[in-house]
Amino acid sequence: MHPMEPFLGDEPLGWADLCDAALMEDVGLGDVTRFAVPEESRSEYEVEAQAEGIVCGLGFMHDLFVPLGGSEPDEYGEHRLVDGDSVEPGTVVYAGRLNSRELLSNERAALNFLMHLSGIATLTSKFVEAVRGTKVRILDTRKTLPGLRAIQKYAVRVGGGRNHRMNLSDGVLIKDNHIRAAGGISEAVARVRAGAPHTMKIEVECETVAQVDRALSAGADIILLDNMAAGEVGDAVSICRGRALLEVSGGVNLENVGELAQTGVDFISVGTITHSAVALPFHLEVR
Amino acid sequence: MHPMEPFLGDEPLGWADLCDAALMEDVGLGDVTRFAVPEESRSEYEVEAQAEGIVCGLGFMHDLFVPLGGSEPDEYGEHRLVDGDSVEPGTVVYAGRLNSRELLSNERAALNFLMHLSGIATLTSKFVEAVRGTKVRILDTRKTLPGLRAIQKYAVRVGGGRNHRMNLSDGVLIKDNHIRAAGGISEAVARVRAGAPHTMKIEVECETVAQVDRALSAGADIILLDNMAAGEVGDAVSICRGRALLEVSGGVNLENVGELAQTGVDFISVGTITHSAVALPFHLEVR
Amino acid sequence: MHPMEPFLGDEPLGWADLCDAALMEDVGLGDVTRFAVPEESRSEYEVEAQAEGIVCGLGFMHDLFVPLGGSEPDEYGEHRLVDGDSVEPGTVVYAGRLNSRELLSNERAALNFLMHLSGIATLTSKFVEAVRGTKVRILDTRKTLPGLRAIQKYAVRVGGGRNHRMNLSDGVLIKDNHIRAAGGISEAVARVRAGAPHTMKIEVECETVAQVDRALSAGADIILLDNMAAGEVGDAVSICRGRALLEVSGGVNLENVGELAQTGVDFISVGTITHSAVALPFHLEVR
Amino acid sequence: MHPMEPFLGDEPLGWADLCDAALMEDVGLGDVTRFAVPEESRSEYEVEAQAEGIVCGLGFMHDLFVPLGGSEPDEYGEHRLVDGDSVEPGTVVYAGRLNSRELLSNERAALNFLMHLSGIATLTSKFVEAVRGTKVRILDTRKTLPGLRAIQKYAVRVGGGRNHRMNLSDGVLIKDNHIRAAGGISEAVARVRAGAPHTMKIEVECETVAQVDRALSAGADIILLDNMAAGEVGDAVSICRGRALLEVSGGVNLENVGELAQTGVDFISVGTITHSAVALPFHLEVR
Amino acid sequence: MHPMEPFLGDEPLGWADLCDAALMEDVGLGDVTRFAVPEESRSEYEVEAQAEGIVCGLGFMHDLFVPLGGSEPDEYGEHRLVDGDSVEPGTVVYAGRLNSRELLSNERAALNFLMHLSGIATLTSKFVEAVRGTKVRILDTRKTLPGLRAIQKYAVRVGGGRNHRMNLSDGVLIKDNHIRAAGGISEAVARVRAGAPHTMKIEVECETVAQVDRALSAGADIILLDNMAAGEVGDAVSICRGRALLEVSGGVNLENVGELAQTGVDFISVGTITHSAVALPFHLEVR
Amino acid sequence: MHPMEPFLGDEPLGWADLCDAALMEDVGLGDVTRFAVPEESRSEYEVEAQAEGIVCGLGFMHDLFVPLGGSEPDEYGEHRLVDGDSVEPGTVVYAGRLNSRELLSNERAALNFLMHLSGIATLTSKFVEAVRGTKVRILDTRKTLPGLRAIQKYAVRVGGGRNHRMNLSDGVLIKDNHIRAAGGISEAVARVRAGAPHTMKIEVECETVAQVDRALSAGADIILLDNMAAGEVGDAVSICRGRALLEVSGGVNLENVGELAQTGVDFISVGTITHSAVALPFHLEVR
Repeated sequence: MHPMEPFLGDEPLGWADLCDAALMEDVGLGDVTRFAVPEESRSEYEVEAQAEGIVCGLGFMHDLFVPLGGSEPDEYGEHRLVDGDSVEPGTVVYAGRLNSRELLSNERAALNFLMHLSGIATLTSKFVEAVRGTKVRILDTRKTLPGLRAIQKYAVRVGGGRNHRMNLSDGVLIKDNHIRAAGGISEAVARVRAGAPHTMKIEVECETVAQVDRALSAGADIILLDNMAAGEVGDAVSICRGRALLEVSGGVNLENVGELAQTGVDFISVGTITHSAVALPFHLEVR
Repeated sequence: MHPMEPFLGDEPLGWADLCDAALMEDVGLGDVTRFAVPEESRSEYEVEAQAEGIVCGLGFMHDLFVPLGGSEPDEYGEHRLVDGDSVEPGTVVYAGRLNSRELLSNERAALNFLMHLSGIATLTSKFVEAVRGTKVRILDTRKTLPGLRAIQKYAVRVGGGRNHRMNLSDGVLIKDNHIRAAGGISEAVARVRAGAPHTMKIEVECETVAQVDRALSAGADIILLDNMAAGEVGDAVSICRGRALLEVSGGVNLENVGELAQTGVDFISVGTITHSAVALPFHLEVR
Repeated sequence: MHPMEPFLGDEPLGWADLCDAALMEDVGLGDVTRFAVPEESRSEYEVEAQAEGIVCGLGFMHDLFVPLGGSEPDEYGEHRLVDGDSVEPGTVVYAGRLNSRELLSNERAALNFLMHLSGIATLTSKFVEAVRGTKVRILDTRKTLPGLRAIQKYAVRVGGGRNHRMNLSDGVLIKDNHIRAAGGISEAVARVRAGAPHTMKIEVECETVAQVDRALSAGADIILLDNMAAGEVGDAVSICRGRALLEVSGGVNLENVGELAQTGVDFISVGTITHSAVALPFHLEVR
Repeated sequence: MHPMEPFLGDEPLGWADLCDAALMEDVGLGDVTRFAVPEESRSEYEVEAQAEGIVCGLGFMHDLFVPLGGSEPDEYGEHRLVDGDSVEPGTVVYAGRLNSRELLSNERAALNFLMHLSGIATLTSKFVEAVRGTKVRILDTRKTLPGLRAIQKYAVRVGGGRNHRMNLSDGVLIKDNHIRAAGGISEAVARVRAGAPHTMKIEVECETVAQVDRALSAGADIILLDNMAAGEVGDAVSICRGRALLEVSGGVNLENVGELAQTGVDFISVGTITHSAVALPFHLEVR
Repeated sequence: MHPMEPFLGDEPLGWADLCDAALMEDVGLGDVTRFAVPEESRSEYEVEAQAEGIVCGLGFMHDLFVPLGGSEPDEYGEHRLVDGDSVEPGTVVYAGRLNSRELLSNERAALNFLMHLSGIATLTSKFVEAVRGTKVRILDTRKTLPGLRAIQKYAVRVGGGRNHRMNLSDGVLIKDNHIRAAGGISEAVARVRAGAPHTMKIEVECETVAQVDRALSAGADIILLDNMAAGEVGDAVSICRGRALLEVSGGVNLENVGELAQTGVDFISVGTITHSAVALPFHLEVR
Repeated sequence: MHPMEPFLGDEPLGWADLCDAALMEDVGLGDVTRFAVPEESRSEYEVEAQAEGIVCGLGFMHDLFVPLGGSEPDEYGEHRLVDGDSVEPGTVVYAGRLNSRELLSNERAALNFLMHLSGIATLTSKFVEAVRGTKVRILDTRKTLPGLRAIQKYAVRVGGGRNHRMNLSDGVLIKDNHIRAAGGISEAVARVRAGAPHTMKIEVECETVAQVDRALSAGADIILLDNMAAGEVGDAVSICRGRALLEVSGGVNLENVGELAQTGVDFISVGTITHSAVALPFHLEVR
């Protein structure tokens, strides 16, 4: 699925509840500045990007700005782009007309979603761009912000990335602390194979090439190469010879991701895209 | 309140619910990798910083790692520092002993809070440091992430910043779109004075020095100087002559905040500290 | 905003959830008396006042009585008045036609809102009337009923009153116990000024004229004159000379509010209007 | 159950959730006046009555004032009376020692419960007193405040009253509008007997003595005499001759309840005790 | 109310929330198999029974399959039968056209409701059939599955059964353990009569004919004959002579229910119909 | 993990909330029969099995019967067995002493969990027993009851079964309707491989041996043999030659599961164990 395609219908369940919660959080017991504006005032507005990137979160915009059933007939709101589209400063992504009090009370909640999710989609797309021409897929991690995982991972998809496991219950990843507690890689893999659902592949985190060898012997389906330099990663690829999928993780940034991708691994996972993405600025302009 | 003081008891209500929600979000229907670890295994662990900064969020750590009533007597968890303390790579902020399955299942949720909030506290403290020696106070904005406002604003306090209004119901800020809909600054101020609670000061956003003049005439208690260069800010300070508090906002970064602070304004508000703070990395080490 | 104006759109967020909760509370696991009425029966009905007062809460009526999308085309519900209008015995405030089972199951929940909120609006309007001709504004307090604060304060606005702070987070009020714990008025004011948001005025509760003096010296923006007789209030007004807003509170009733208003204070706050308002009776009449 | 007996353990399920919700409603995003008080300050306090009545709601006091596990060892809170005890001005009902910030932040939420529930218990006890010496039991109605029904009905029990049905699903009451829609009393009773659980008695509301006769013929177990004068009530008692329980309702007040009770009916239900009880004032005194 | 009549409008409040919760439980963070199906694909489908029985739960089907407002105009869903209708293998109960991804994601949640509730209605109808020609009414019990009581009891009504009390607050049933703690049947009845609402009949569980005698003397309105053989039940009927309603419970199955019904009791309650009903299979067929 | 081992700590998150919800559902607004029992009464009790099987759900028992902090010191509750143990009629699984009112109010909610989950564990264990001596693992399905999936799947584990995917987001299963919409098995597999997380194996449902062949060619990791007779299953095993895991599903019962298991497949999934398990009876005996 290409980031340029529309993503309508792919938003996570619970999107609408998040929307309500964000509005409650921001409006609280009532917008005290609304009194500045006459009750009957209507505003024409446009939401425009203030920087270059990938837009994401227009569904929130719509939920917060489209008037409900009882509204006046001259109110509306419409997408000008869809999630995944590129923007540059001045690109209008959404526009409409709404009661001014309602518009100004809902503006910040809507923009907070849009700026954060677009920031994630944009950063993800830069990593995707940096590995173009290789077979590598950029993945996210579980290093997400509390309560926002489902929509952050949606933004990763919009930015052209792929999702790693959503939470602890839908994917196996045996890490250093598991191995220590289990008494070794083969013991850990055997224990998980006996207990975890048969529908899941078993991934093992390795810090050295020797561990990669042990993980392959234990029958790991996927091997996560943790914090290895590109050279070591190359060695791991050679040893693996396609017997397992290989994922690079740890210390990845836009400077080194290209070199890592040249090693022949299948996936590179990047925590930064969800825990440290910088917001993409947008502005609501009343005309 | 100095960032180095402890903040025990200052966490927002609802902290515990957020904690539960984050755990549910990450554990889902059960950690399938837990099978790697024997049920009865116990682990000694330390949580340590991997970069320099200000720690924030140790209360979440405690809620997620301290065993409940029915636990074994040899389990414990303890703060080594308090929120607001400085850390450098290797500083241990929390340590304990816990059932290994429980520890590894709860680890990520706890670290996600810790890394995000410490990132905010750290970035805030850099802005605070950059204006040291002036009377300026660093403020946050409503540009926060959905659902996380209360704890993000807590992290700003921990980092030495001050909170601007928490939401639309506890502070008046008349912005450009309000002024346009009201028909002018004096009209907007008069309307709000008639409608909003008498307990709140009235703040008006101005984009030009001429607007500052009009806002002062209208009786604004606080004036927000939006996106002005340091020179213009200085002009506003001269015109104001202490008749209103002055707040600078828009386009503030660590490079220009010092110069802006020298102009004699009272407050500088910075959206970046909540919408774009980079996570401060921490690691859980099992010994 | 005059109590006679419509208040459409001014209801607090969360109104609909309160409505659902009240219906669940009253209907429980199903109305066992509904069997008395044939399933297909329709009723024409009118909701009429049984006493003189100000109506408030018609939005709840609408939410509970207007049939949803799947209903029969001959069902409807319509406002005859808007919140803030005067009623006398026999005034019809709402009317419609609805499935009889649904109507009789929802009736009590709807009337409970209407009677309680109209009771508050009515009592508030009496206080407002009693101070007419002075500059005094009638305020509510935080002495509200658990879970109902937002809608009780809405009813106060509908009755012509103004809201004091909504909760502890949107207004500063330093009371006797704060002063005792802080060690004095000036210490308390200084501490709050250092810690609370700059957007809020600082209000200090004073029990004597001597305290008023100290509060003015400490720079209080608003002074609450607690339980003072009219004479003492007059002295406080003289001393203050406009340097702070003055609010009277404690022991206010319809007998003494007029005299207190003549003293020249700005606000009089009345706990009775929210904690002890008598319901305004309404009746649903099926024709 | 006598109002003077303790009611420990009789509070409704969900009491603790109401408590949390009320605290959230009042504290919001943080008590901004708490800064007036040093963080480490402790306060000794007493909660005392300011008028004569029956205390109710001490459990809320306890939930809000008793320090949780992590608190300092010198903090405590203790009942001096139990729900249902009589108080007069100056009676101390609860006392303790607590962190001053926490005490002052939680005070209002706790007092709001205590004042409202004690107001209901007190008014109920006056009606109970006014019918002493007769067999009449005072009942409440479904005219309660949204969200507060369970605790309001608890307060009625504490005041010596009895509960009528809790909601529409646990008792049958055929009212005028049901009779009209069913086509007559006997039709309505027959329909309900066929549909409602066999565990419930069938109560029919009658406005005239002729209707009482028809209800008896239809086999009603209980008859509600709606808005009848004492003379008419007496006639109904004569006609009934013990074949059904009799309940008086509508227009009952402290002036006429005694005379109504002398007629020989079994129950008198009073909406006022839940929808229009005046709060019983209490004060928190820090020593 | 006959099982063959439609039950539209009789579904319990909260039905829609259960529906949402079930969908969230089944879809989780997103259906990973949806990628198999093109986004724009539409499917025509029919839901058909795979066994003989009574259909129940079509409302859930509708809530989960009828497209919301924003959907394409060629999407629809329609009932072919109503709850309570008989089905046999191949009977189509619901049909429509929907986006294929949405259809396949929602299918299981909808079928789980339909199969479970139809299983209950079907089993109930078999008990009802087995007592046809007697005056006996089949009742359910409180032996329901956690969280599903309201809809399970709805399915019992749909199957032609009647509901016993919905929960502990809407019906009195004095059981062996109550009698033991009270010190005897007459003590238990007297205590409940003094404390419980006057709107409820008092039912007493008896294990022997001697106890039935004591319960009648104590004035029980209903007597539950617990685990008695048909002969003993007959003795109880003789002794009772219509002074109380009689309910048989315990060890009832389709083999013995007919004989028990011949004894002349009023009600037979059956735990099996809610705690152990076998699902009635349904299948969603895409054409 | 063997069914006879203890399962402490393996209960799903959210267990306690389910417990509270079930209690609220059963107690409602207060147990009206509690008045039969003196407030101060204590009861010694034992919970005993009334049939042979596997016990499951003792944690719910404990949550509902163990007195909270404020209780009397002579109250307690203790496990006599752990989840997964075998019981026969008369086996005591839990015992304690508790306030009689509280015990009798909480009894049904606790037993409803225990009986349902033990029913599932018991039926699962029979299927597990029936395939003993083969390599086959018994799996559950998504045919669970709304809201109960996590605990039903826990009971399957306790009974010796294994969990298939928990919901649509943690496992891929391409079914007939997906294949139809995608245009073929290979298209469906290719689409899913491109879109679903790399951590999940791809399972394809096949109805014929020819489809098995196509699924293997498409690279399916697991093949579900839907509703095939044992002979056909054997053919599928021969064709597969270990290239994929094989799962049998559809029409499986205790009569045919043994024969199906002899075919050499890896898994047999059984919907009956969650959607149609008969409750295992337990009784609470007060001594």
